[in-house]
Amino acid sequence: MESKVPYSNYRLTMRLEIRNRPGMLSKVVASVTKAGAIIAGVDLVEINRKVAIRDITFDVANVRHGYQVTTCLNKLKGVRTISVSDQIFLMHLGGKITVQNRYPITSRNRLSMLYTPGVARIAQAIADHPSAIHSLTVKSNSVAIVTDGSAILGLGNLGAGAALPVMEGKAMIFREFAGINAWPICLNTQDEDEIVRTIQNIAPVFGAINMEDISAPRCFRIEDRLKQVLDIPVMHDDQHGTAIVVLAALKNALKFTKKNLSQCRILVNGLGSAGIACCRILLAAGARHILGCDREGVVLAEKGAKLYRHRRNLLPLIHRDKPVMSLKQALRKADVFIGVSAGNVLEPRDLKLMNKNNIVFAMANPDPEVDPHRAVAYARVFATGRSDFPNQINNALAFPGVFRGTLDVRAKAISEEMKLAAAEALAGLIHANQLSSEYIIPSIFDKRVVAAIAGAVSRVAIKTGLAQSQTKLKAEPL
Amino acid sequence: MESKVPYSNYRLTMRLEIRNRPGMLSKVVASVTKAGAIIAGVDLVEINRKVAIRDITFDVANVRHGYQVTTCLNKLKGVRTISVSDQIFLMHLGGKITVQNRYPITSRNRLSMLYTPGVARIAQAIADHPSAIHSLTVKSNSVAIVTDGSAILGLGNLGAGAALPVMEGKAMIFREFAGINAWPICLNTQDEDEIVRTIQNIAPVFGAINMEDISAPRCFRIEDRLKQVLDIPVMHDDQHGTAIVVLAALKNALKFTKKNLSQCRILVNGLGSAGIACCRILLAAGARHILGCDREGVVLAEKGAKLYRHRRNLLPLIHRDKPVMSLKQALRKADVFIGVSAGNVLEPRDLKLMNKNNIVFAMANPDPEVDPHRAVAYARVFATGRSDFPNQINNALAFPGVFRGTLDVRAKAISEEMKLAAAEALAGLIHANQLSSEYIIPSIFDKRVVAAIAGAVSRVAIKTGLAQSQTKLKAEPL
Repeated sequence: MESKVPYSNYRLTMRLEIRNRPGMLSKVVASVTKAGAIIAGVDLVEINRKVAIRDITFDVANVRHGYQVTTCLNKLKGVRTISVSDQIFLMHLGGKITVQNRYPITSRNRLSMLYTPGVARIAQAIADHPSAIHSLTVKSNSVAIVTDGSAILGLGNLGAGAALPVMEGKAMIFREFAGINAWPICLNTQDEDEIVRTIQNIAPVFGAINMEDISAPRCFRIEDRLKQVLDIPVMHDDQHGTAIVVLAALKNALKFTKKNLSQCRILVNGLGSAGIACCRILLAAGARHILGCDREGVVLAEKGAKLYRHRRNLLPLIHRDKPVMSLKQALRKADVFIGVSAGNVLEPRDLKLMNKNNIVFAMANPDPEVDPHRAVAYARVFATGRSDFPNQINNALAFPGVFRGTLDVRAKAISEEMKLAAAEALAGLIHANQLSSEYIIPSIFDKRVVAAIAGAVSRVAIKTGLAQSQTKLKAEPL
Repeated sequence: MESKVPYSNYRLTMRLEIRNRPGMLSKVVASVTKAGAIIAGVDLVEINRKVAIRDITFDVANVRHGYQVTTCLNKLKGVRTISVSDQIFLMHLGGKITVQNRYPITSRNRLSMLYTPGVARIAQAIADHPSAIHSLTVKSNSVAIVTDGSAILGLGNLGAGAALPVMEGKAMIFREFAGINAWPICLNTQDEDEIVRTIQNIAPVFGAINMEDISAPRCFRIEDRLKQVLDIPVMHDDQHGTAIVVLAALKNALKFTKKNLSQCRILVNGLGSAGIACCRILLAAGARHILGCDREGVVLAEKGAKLYRHRRNLLPLIHRDKPVMSLKQALRKADVFIGVSAGNVLEPRDLKLMNKNNIVFAMANPDPEVDPHRAVAYARVFATGRSDFPNQINNALAFPGVFRGTLDVRAKAISEEMKLAAAEALAGLIHANQLSSEYIIPSIFDKRVVAAIAGAVSRVAIKTGLAQSQTKLKAEPL
């Protein structure tokens, strides 16, 4: 995961005691810059006649580079290091989320209404009318983010504890963009049966389940089984969140390049949870020519009707022991490359094998399947999963709106139609005349995104009979 | 649970359109008062020449009484009802707690530090150094409030859903008084093995487990088993929270009445989870003469050393099939009555059977074991679990401080010594010369309570080698 250029992921703040003489600060700044770091800010903490205490914040390329820069500063005459801190670690101290009260408990009277004895009336009301739990508790606006830590980001199987900061980050996105209470559930087991039972046992508190970072193929079975046993919707975001955003981006890329989904040849590289889900949603949306490639080569090569029929469970069509061609062979004459695999599996020039007006989504993290700096010259439309290039395909564009829309109408499930509607709504935020090779998907900070997706998802849930409530409960009415 | 006098638990707000003429408002107020309700407030919403729209808030005795009052107002000439709302239900709409972010996600840069790719550095750090989870995530300041809904307040076995509003209320107390993130886990199972496995599976996210409203005797076994399998502390609050506050109140009551714990005769009525835990802590604190009474009569009558030796598991000493005497027989010559059973099992006059300077804790909810209005004349010190009488024995006095102190030093367990220290600290907040028959225990709104208990609990944990950290992590440092 090492970057070679300074990057805000490695942002250090050094607190320095600097002799109070003209020119000292610029000496410090010059030293930082000379060492290859990029200054992000200089703050004055304290000053007297003799010394100034300053916080110098700068970005470095990686941990080693950070040591080099701090060592340089340590050597400067008239400068003493008080402390060095790493912004990302600082921001994580004590965790990133909290549980808060909707009202302060200011009086005994209020306590008696929120807790005993008054709360007994609410408990009894729910016992008498079980569906009252949706209006009288936190359930209707709460999501469990469930992981077993078996497939954390690009890092792999690091277990439950290492997954927690990631799930907290996800919970923050749920709150910030969709106003949803999300709580991390990091499981101390990777056994399929245990996971299903545990989630079933804790489901009463939640309005929906978001599965996260659970490795394939267990994630498919776990999702299917949970859908069968729970009365609340379940969505594995690595699959469906990614798939929705890929479909939205592809719709716009095809519109821009004047290609047709049903006719174009699509190569999906990487058949983990995200890859399989991309194949599924593309088939549901009308694609017919899909090749699925994994480390072994192309192992999913079935065509047309059979592929479509099996879209809900493509695993039987995958023959890992009998690859029919290599990745590069499959690139020839492809219109679309969708990479959800590993960094740098292709050379930029390889993209020349593709058809004209080719579309390349190289979404491996942190390094895309092909070097984005050079690849952009060989693709008509080029997208990555990274925030430092145009066209970021980020599942955070989809899941806040999908869950918002689902919870708003208390949908029983998140159906294929709802996901397709989410992709359509997301794509539709960019008008035809705005489309460009660098603008096929809105930014996650585009305020319209969540409302557009949530509205589309709710409407389809109502139309297809999955909604259990059409009067959107204001989640936090007082 | 019906009260006969107006009570803020039944607080209604009627929005009325009242003809705008002098004397109309006093007519409305008089009508409410005449119907037996108590006015809590009158607010003006809107006024014009013809009508005034006002919110009239008043307390009634019970649901039926509420209907009577609203019917009276409906009949008044010149008054039209716009709406009637019940304050407790209103306060519960959409739930009482939320999950919030410690920072707003205002920029792509911040997002990249809180979520991917930056969070990968934190995940990797925890994978490399597992104990870093305590400083870099929400774990160190988070408690799971776990219930199976089998013994909800005084209501009984209503199941997981009905328990949720109660657990949310408890979570609010954790936040308000101790600054702890508590999240409700309401279990869709009442099977002992399933409960243990489920809690074990979800434990990684939490710094401690608070068991709640789980019925006896399963609660004893579940607590013991969880303590064995988890590396975080577990406390069943119905047992130990109650026991700590009872012991604190009793210490002060004994000091006030100049009695000695080891010599006085104590009758514990009700041998559910709270009753058994009271016996245990009293034995640990030095009591030697305890009779345990249940519906069948006195079924726990072992004395002295054997009772003390078995204090960690009293169940084998309880012989429900062979009661040795009745409740009233046991009252004779008792110094202390501790009721954690059911309402009105005694007549006030029965208390005359007790020794002089008797101490009576009648804590059944909502109706104490003996009518508090009349019983007070027959007891030197009288306490209840209610907030509308002096000496409220409320476990909310104990658990916020106990968990605060435990989390502060990352204690491995909540030991008997820690609970005794908590009781001592709580009792010690009232100086000898402040003690009176109506002031043996501080109020839950006494700001000193949580700090005093937390400090005592932390110190004992450190002293007895249970603390795993002595540098209190500031939970929310930025």
